[in-house]
Amino acid sequence: MAERLSDIGERELIRRIGSLLELEGRRSARVSTGIGDDAAAFLPRRGYELLVTCDSMVEGRHYLPASSGSFDVGRRAMALNISDIGAMGGEALFALVSLGLPADMLVRDVEALYRGFLYELNPFDASIIGGNLTGSGGGTFIDITLIGEVEQGKAVRRCGARPGDAVLVTGFPGRAAAGLRLLLHRPQDAGLADHPLVRAYTTPSHRARLGRALAQTGYVTAMTDTSDGFPGDLSHVAEASGAGAEIVKGKIPVDEAVAEAARLLGMDPYEFILGRSDDYELVVTCDPRHVPALQSVAAGCGAEALTEVGRITEGQGTVMVLPGGRRIPLEAPGFDHFRG
Amino acid sequence: MAERLSDIGERELIRRIGSLLELEGRRSARVSTGIGDDAAAFLPRRGYELLVTCDSMVEGRHYLPASSGSFDVGRRAMALNISDIGAMGGEALFALVSLGLPADMLVRDVEALYRGFLYELNPFDASIIGGNLTGSGGGTFIDITLIGEVEQGKAVRRCGARPGDAVLVTGFPGRAAAGLRLLLHRPQDAGLADHPLVRAYTTPSHRARLGRALAQTGYVTAMTDTSDGFPGDLSHVAEASGAGAEIVKGKIPVDEAVAEAARLLGMDPYEFILGRSDDYELVVTCDPRHVPALQSVAAGCGAEALTEVGRITEGQGTVMVLPGGRRIPLEAPGFDHFRG
Repeated sequence: MAERLSDIGERELIRRIGSLLELEGRRSARVSTGIGDDAAAFLPRRGYELLVTCDSMVEGRHYLPASSGSFDVGRRAMALNISDIGAMGGEALFALVSLGLPADMLVRDVEALYRGFLYELNPFDASIIGGNLTGSGGGTFIDITLIGEVEQGKAVRRCGARPGDAVLVTGFPGRAAAGLRLLLHRPQDAGLADHPLVRAYTTPSHRARLGRALAQTGYVTAMTDTSDGFPGDLSHVAEASGAGAEIVKGKIPVDEAVAEAARLLGMDPYEFILGRSDDYELVVTCDPRHVPALQSVAAGCGAEALTEVGRITEGQGTVMVLPGGRRIPLEAPGFDHFRG
Repeated sequence: MAERLSDIGERELIRRIGSLLELEGRRSARVSTGIGDDAAAFLPRRGYELLVTCDSMVEGRHYLPASSGSFDVGRRAMALNISDIGAMGGEALFALVSLGLPADMLVRDVEALYRGFLYELNPFDASIIGGNLTGSGGGTFIDITLIGEVEQGKAVRRCGARPGDAVLVTGFPGRAAAGLRLLLHRPQDAGLADHPLVRAYTTPSHRARLGRALAQTGYVTAMTDTSDGFPGDLSHVAEASGAGAEIVKGKIPVDEAVAEAARLLGMDPYEFILGRSDDYELVVTCDPRHVPALQSVAAGCGAEALTEVGRITEGQGTVMVLPGGRRIPLEAPGFDHFRG
């Protein structure tokens, strides 16, 4: 019989996680105290600011346990924190992982969760230096704090966009939303697990390396990752910058797979592209003269698309310009945790 | 009717928390990006190591909602993180607060939670610089990451105790356990809420200032806070240091209130003192010659008791010496989250 947490107890679970991290994770010479003391300790680097972000995932709310294995859930939870650090122009260093776990959870599922964390952290030589384990009455919750660093003065905030700045977006917004809809449409279809759009939802890739490379140019005036849907996150940038934004519908990159999923589902692809979608793409603004420079950085960074889609404007609100020239206001469709 | 989270929604809740923190919390000039961006950013101090810890509280597991108001729950959740930073010899700087909240929770209870956090943070000029809000299917969970700092080389770990070192403990172990037992014994007794032992459980005070002052002397070889009960946490120190420990029963400080609660409940006070108790006192080890120096630091630090209770020994395991000279092994009674 597969072991459950209640079979081995907390102490043994901590021992096993410790040895998994030791064998499969990275270690940093800057960490003077790691897991197992009252707090972890590390030495900051001169000339760098520290970045810190945290994000939670709650079973049944942020992921569907039936369609996501623990490894993928771990990847996703870590990727979205890495995305946040990259969207500031920084690099991930150290994670603290706080888990609430039901006592009947399988030990191997907890180990798979940690392997998912490491899958995302190891490419950055980033490590898990602390955390907390507790029982949860009901489902699992995962709360990750990720610490990163960025050269002093190079952090890119949301609030620096200026009227006239170009608005760019990486990749193809809407892929995660289309993947989620496919999953909900055919919940029994096991073959869907490897569909590229479903993968975009269950294990989104982040643009953290690109975010950092763009920030290093000094040309980016504002940047954020898209976790609320592309228009919603663009609105956050515009609002924080005391400005408005205008995007041109014809310029928004449309992924062929999203278009096909929309056909299959009898929907308009723009419902995905302009709706809520946790894509972890980047919204970037810069002086229009710097667009080619940023695009060539993006091309050098794994050839990810960085598409100019509009402008920051005077005033407020985000509008979309239709092919005929008509301008329609875009509602930010951000998700509300307390209103469902 | 009192407002609930579902009445005002996530955006408005975030706005209200932001304005509460602005009005009632501290601000630090070192924070270049606070709440509301992808990540917070701050400048580390030269010559200091950073400390980072996290701890969760889950409703119904770590606190009894019926007997704890939200303000007290907030205080407790923050105090135990502050205690961890102090037990390393550090000072609290910045907190990230991640909450899972049911949609029917009262807005004023969330505000009270934050006021509880600030009540503990403000005396350190520490501030909340980030966090996350999410819905929870069931009860509330609170996960706090606290960042602190300590002069490079001054962090005190658990692993530095040497055979022959004196073992000291602050305050009176067992108060929180006695308070919890009183609560469970008379759950309907509203008057109990202000009983000093019940307060020791619901809103424990930490010894973070004292921990920092002791660490500054350079005499402390190992230190930890007591969240698992005094013998359990002493065992952690001994084990991490590759040693054993011996405590003398007659030297352990017995709080008069604990003795009285034990009489009332028909129990032995040592069931509280040696059992599981989240007291957030400190266990400290040092060369025996330095005991008077540390005790005089403690006396200067609000006259908290710092009592010598035993020695670190060769070998392993923790034993207690009874008045007649008999030595009995002490079982570490640490709580197991997955076995209840």
